[in-house]
Order: sequence, then structure tokens, then C-alpha cells
Amino acid sequence: MRNLYHEQLDAIVDDLVTLTGTVRRAVAASTAALLNADAPLAEKVIDGDKLVDETIENIEERALLLLATQQPVATDLRQLVATLRMLTDLERMGQLAVHVSKVARLRMPEVAVPTGLQPTIMAMASVADQMIHAASRIVSDRDVIAAGKLEDTDDEMDKLRQQLFRTLLSDNWTHGVEPAIDLALLGRYYERIGDHAVSMARRVVYLVTGEIPSPS
Amino acid sequence: MRNLYHEQLDAIVDDLVTLTGTVRRAVAASTAALLNADAPLAEKVIDGDKLVDETIENIEERALLLLATQQPVATDLRQLVATLRMLTDLERMGQLAVHVSKVARLRMPEVAVPTGLQPTIMAMASVADQMIHAASRIVSDRDVIAAGKLEDTDDEMDKLRQQLFRTLLSDNWTHGVEPAIDLALLGRYYERIGDHAVSMARRVVYLVTGEIPSPS
Repeated sequence: MRNLYHEQLDAIVDDLVTLTGTVRRAVAASTAALLNADAPLAEKVIDGDKLVDETIENIEERALLLLATQQPVATDLRQLVATLRMLTDLERMGQLAVHVSKVARLRMPEVAVPTGLQPTIMAMASVADQMIHAASRIVSDRDVIAAGKLEDTDDEMDKLRQQLFRTLLSDNWTHGVEPAIDLALLGRYYERIGDHAVSMARRVVYLVTGEIPSPS
Repeated sequence: MRNLYHEQLDAIVDDLVTLTGTVRRAVAASTAALLNADAPLAEKVIDGDKLVDETIENIEERALLLLATQQPVATDLRQLVATLRMLTDLERMGQLAVHVSKVARLRMPEVAVPTGLQPTIMAMASVADQMIHAASRIVSDRDVIAAGKLEDTDDEMDKLRQQLFRTLLSDNWTHGVEPAIDLALLGRYYERIGDHAVSMARRVVYLVTGEIPSPS
């Protein structure tokens, strides 16, 4: 019985890691839909979020069942509670990929991002991708040191966001208000995706050390 | 022993309701700081978020201790899990009030919101305020019917956001890119505050019915 329980606990963590990969692909696809004005891909991300939500519900129910029936203590309890919190992060990251896809869809057949800012958006998407990938490894390996490094990657994201805003607010900005608002919101979406990756990493730190790192 | 446990469980819910009131006041103060370019008030909101985070940690630790030591089942288990999820919402609402205050601070001594849009921002803040107040009552009374009504209030927020964006994108917009970006982000912050109130209400529905309402 005890062994089956630990198998179930491990399966929950495995599924959490798999789901992180799914969300990572959704974010990458939303960026591709955005930069290529790819309507079918945008729709795929928007529709695919239902599956993400269903997977989250399934993992959540299994975690609650273990909490209710196995009375886990210490590390096992923390693992389950951390899992519930990380599911909230993944749910939100999935929604943010949907938001990116919806901005893309709104401006089609045009590309929502002016050519000059495409490298910045690509860089933000690339940093977000690295951060989700790191979060996934941190969850699967309980790697507290990698969790610390992830905060440095988050600083890169902040710099890219500042660079983006400088461009939007410079005298050379000739695209008007609408693309400026699109870009400001897109910048915010990628930044928030990164924040949620950091939040997942912090949950692993709490899991391993029992200490909740204070939010920055 | 069983009675002390239920007292502790009730105290956690009471503290959650009190904290919701604190966050509600922070959101209201951030709006006042924004519309009056009130620097001390903006600082008060920004500094005060530390206390919100400390309160969240304190409630979270007590909820985890009960989970670990009392092996709650059924409704009690769901109450504790819902509490952990609602703490995440409140943490985020507090951060959003800080974001509003920071936009206010960035433009001081000017008021970040042009006169013509102040009524719209006031209306969004007022809807957000009503939604947090409703969430608080829904949590304290486990009122599933009020939870359904909250979704209607959220529709009002959507309409105000659409109205805001129409103004920013109209030919009559003469304030340029920077205030347009400020306003687009502010609109998003109030909208997200409302979303988190809805999320809290959905957690209560789950608590009472055992069903997780699907996110819209």
C-alpha cells in the first residue's frame, strides 16, 4: 500500500513535468503564430488550452485524493501542496499563451509586431522558453541551485522589457498608438510567463528547504 | 482536541476574510494615489504589500500545519486547499495594487490618467472594489449564488475595458503613446484584480459543491 502511494506521488510529479512541457510548447507556438500571422497555429493554441485545463484538473484531483486518503506528512505533504500551487502557475501560463495568440489573431492578416521589434519579441519569447525549460528541470530534479540561477534569467527578461518600452516611447516610433498598446501588453505577457516560471522554482525551494522564498 | 481543531480552521477563514479587506483597501488606496497623484499614499500601498505577504505566509503555515497534523477529510480538506488557492489570488491582487501605485508614482507630479479618462478608471476601480467586497462575503458566507452573480459584475469590467480601449484608439486621442500604454496597462491591472475576485468565488463553489467551475 505504501509503495502504491509513492508510485502515485511520483506519477503526479511526472505528469506535472509533462504538463510543463505542454505549456512550454503552447508558448512557443503562440510566438510563432504572432510573428508569422499564422491563423491555424493561433487557433490551435487557443483550442489547446482546454486540454491543459483538463490535465490540470486531473492532476489536482489525484493530489487531493492522496491528501485525503494517505495523510502525507513532511516532504510528501509539501510536495503535494507545492504541486497544487505550481498547477496554478501552469494554468496561468497557458492563459497567457492564449492572450499572445489572441493579439496575433486580432491583427491578421497583418503581423501584429512591426519588423523592427520582432527581434526583441523573439528574444523575450526565447528567454521565456529557457525559463519554462529550467522550471521543468528544477521540478523534476528538485534542483535548488538552478532555482537561484533562474532569477538571473528573469533579470534578462526585465532588461528586454525596458528595451521594448524605450522603443515604444522613443521619438522614432512611427507606428502609432495601437501597435504600441499591443506591444506593451505582449511584453507584459512574456514577462508574466517568466514570473510564473520563477514562482514554480520558488515552490521547489520551499519543497526542499521548507522555507518560502520571499517574492521579489 | 477536535474542538480546538475546528476553532483553528474557523480562525483561518476569519483571517482570510480580514486579509481580503486589507487587500481591498490597498486597491482603493492605489486608485486614490493614481487619480490624485498622491505620493505618500502610493508609497504606503507599495510598503504595505510586505505586510500582506507576511499575513499570507502566516495563514499558509497554519493551514499546512492543520493539513499535516489533523488529516482533515471531505469539506475540511477542501476548505484548506481552497484557502491555499485563495491566498495566491490575494497575493496577486496585492501586487496589482502595487503596480497601479507604481504607474502613479512614475508620472508624478502629473496625474497619470488624462482628465477625460478619469471617470472610466474610477468606474473600473469601483467595479473592482465591489468584486473584492463580494468575494469577501462569498468566502465568509459560502454563498454559491452570490458567486454566480459575481460573474455578471465581471462582464461590466469587460465592457469598461473595451470602452477604455476604444478611447485610446480613437482619432480623438491626442495624448500620445506614453499615456496610452499607461492606461492600457492600468486597464489590464483592474481587469486582473476582478479576475482574481472571480477566482476566489470559484474556489468557494468548489468548496461547497466539490466541483471546480471551468475557467472562462
